[in-house]
Amino acid sequence: MNDAVSITRDLVRCPSVTPADAGALGVLERLLKDAGFEVHRVTFGEPGTADIDNLYARIGTEAPHITFAGHTDVVPPGDEAAWTHGAFSGEVKDGFLYGRGAVDMKGGIACCVAAVLQYLADNGGKPQKDGRGSISFLITGDEEDISVNGTVKLLKWCAERGEKFDHCVLGEPSNVEVLGDCIKIGRRGSQSGTLYVDGVQGHVAYPHRASNPVPDISRLIVALSDEPLDHGSAQFQASNLEFTSVDVGNTASNVIPGQARAKFNIRYNDNHTQETLRALVEERLVKACGNRIRARIVWEYSNSNVFVTKPGAFTDLAVSAIEQVTGRKPELSTSGGTSDARFISSYCPVIEFGLVGQTMHQIDERTPVSDLEKLTRIYRGLLDRYFV
Amino acid sequence: MNDAVSITRDLVRCPSVTPADAGALGVLERLLKDAGFEVHRVTFGEPGTADIDNLYARIGTEAPHITFAGHTDVVPPGDEAAWTHGAFSGEVKDGFLYGRGAVDMKGGIACCVAAVLQYLADNGGKPQKDGRGSISFLITGDEEDISVNGTVKLLKWCAERGEKFDHCVLGEPSNVEVLGDCIKIGRRGSQSGTLYVDGVQGHVAYPHRASNPVPDISRLIVALSDEPLDHGSAQFQASNLEFTSVDVGNTASNVIPGQARAKFNIRYNDNHTQETLRALVEERLVKACGNRIRARIVWEYSNSNVFVTKPGAFTDLAVSAIEQVTGRKPELSTSGGTSDARFISSYCPVIEFGLVGQTMHQIDERTPVSDLEKLTRIYRGLLDRYFV
Repeated sequence: MNDAVSITRDLVRCPSVTPADAGALGVLERLLKDAGFEVHRVTFGEPGTADIDNLYARIGTEAPHITFAGHTDVVPPGDEAAWTHGAFSGEVKDGFLYGRGAVDMKGGIACCVAAVLQYLADNGGKPQKDGRGSISFLITGDEEDISVNGTVKLLKWCAERGEKFDHCVLGEPSNVEVLGDCIKIGRRGSQSGTLYVDGVQGHVAYPHRASNPVPDISRLIVALSDEPLDHGSAQFQASNLEFTSVDVGNTASNVIPGQARAKFNIRYNDNHTQETLRALVEERLVKACGNRIRARIVWEYSNSNVFVTKPGAFTDLAVSAIEQVTGRKPELSTSGGTSDARFISSYCPVIEFGLVGQTMHQIDERTPVSDLEKLTRIYRGLLDRYFV
Repeated sequence: MNDAVSITRDLVRCPSVTPADAGALGVLERLLKDAGFEVHRVTFGEPGTADIDNLYARIGTEAPHITFAGHTDVVPPGDEAAWTHGAFSGEVKDGFLYGRGAVDMKGGIACCVAAVLQYLADNGGKPQKDGRGSISFLITGDEEDISVNGTVKLLKWCAERGEKFDHCVLGEPSNVEVLGDCIKIGRRGSQSGTLYVDGVQGHVAYPHRASNPVPDISRLIVALSDEPLDHGSAQFQASNLEFTSVDVGNTASNVIPGQARAKFNIRYNDNHTQETLRALVEERLVKACGNRIRARIVWEYSNSNVFVTKPGAFTDLAVSAIEQVTGRKPELSTSGGTSDARFISSYCPVIEFGLVGQTMHQIDERTPVSDLEKLTRIYRGLLDRYFV
């Protein structure tokens, strides 16, 4: 059966808890080969990481080329006994399909595949009747953990083969409350760092011989937390810096410590690049330190850069397809955490649209069966509009 | 030999590393019994602590009653091989007597005993020729560690026997640079506490759904550190609050933590009691929290209350004895850390005057032999002035 519910169930029944594949990519490989796709299974690895299975499948050889991206790995089920229906059962009950990955994001992938198969069947097995156009799938098994041997390497592998993508749809659960309420068109960047403040250790009875870094780091935390990094942009909410920890670890109540450190994370919008953001924070730090406080920041490596697909023809087409099926005009959102879209955005415009995220990563993750059917119709409508 | 150098050496040769006595109190017991003192050896203990030997000796039965206090336990020698002369040798070389406890405070006790024996020998074996007056010794073996089974219990034991002290001299190394530069007439109190700030845990990407306690505790640390507790008093420097640690312990860079805590210690003067001090800090905390921040303080138990022996007839007498021997007018100081004087101050006025503290607790702890001789003359001069 090639409908979205059947494909979702087949995928959910593979217990592909990251980094295991457990047969999930094989389910897709069979369906896509049968529809005429050229299917590649590629494994990536590096010392200290698990080898990861990935899949790239394409039909057609010419532009325009739309690719559907996703991941078949899932987060662990947690306490399996707490699930109403088995975490890997894919059971349908009272209009819901249950199982880990039902919404994040085996259900989304199943809808893409079902829509594509249906579209091809209705169009003589080709993306366009004139023989032009391409449809592909970029599916990884390494999204939920370290994201090292998945999408990044698969995109590079594609580029080396000369694959060129014009547009991408990533089927992550983008909707917040109800199907059709939200397309993600970008994500903020993420940058972490540690602030160190050096003082001079001493005895609390003789504070004039010491320099206490605790009030000093507190002043810097207040200064860096209070001044906004910006006031948002056309597509983004304001950037935000949060101190996530401050630590000294001094257990001696009669000792003024010699150093304090605080960890922070910044979610930043397209007013900044990683470089200008770091420079801005460093500049504010210098100002807050004055001539007295000795402080420095150690930045963490980050590959979560800000990206945005500007509203235009491609997003209009998605909005139109969504409106037709759901009657809702989706918000074009850039809020929330990171996804593989940040990597894809270096190759082509990307939007994220999938199921409703409410139960993802939880016990009893589930999706309404009707959402699977509607999402399939939305993807189908998108293909109808894309290939003209 | 009843001179201070001989007694110091006899005491140093007892390796009375706290809580061991190693025969040290026996040295004093023999000398004092020979001089006509009634000597009590009393042992105190409680579950979970070592039993501690203490000594109380008195000659005379009437007021005025002056008591000399001290401790025969010492801190560990550290690396004994690093000592120029054995840590428990009491060796005299180039005008210095070496050994653990030489200045803190076996040397000080030896000078008291030598001065008292000399004074009694010169006065027919009695504190006063009219038969009135009393001299006693309050010597503990539990000062350098937990101070639970020593002076506190010995004072209580004395009180239960009906002992009444009029004045006390504690022979701790009070001088900073040179003999005669400093009498300690009081000490600041010490009070520790932990400040807890509660927030609401959440994801850094959604700060509006969380409440970050890190900037909040930072604001409170700055507020409580910046506002002076007072501006000092006649006998004391200003009180001081130092935050000694601030800790969250959050290792997840994408999580806003739910709680932060900071430890602090206050050294406070006679503008405060423990109760008024705590109330003052709590009041400032409430003000700094406003309606928004949820914070509380957990106070630690403290028996280090502030005390002061106000300058007057007794301190004048000590100053005069010191000036006569050293030519120096000592400062009446209340600086520095705690000692057993804080316990004695509940029973009678107490001053601390002993040797020079520079080498205490160090490798090669040592005192000039000439200081032992001078300090003995100072104590003798004090007795001559006390009993008129």
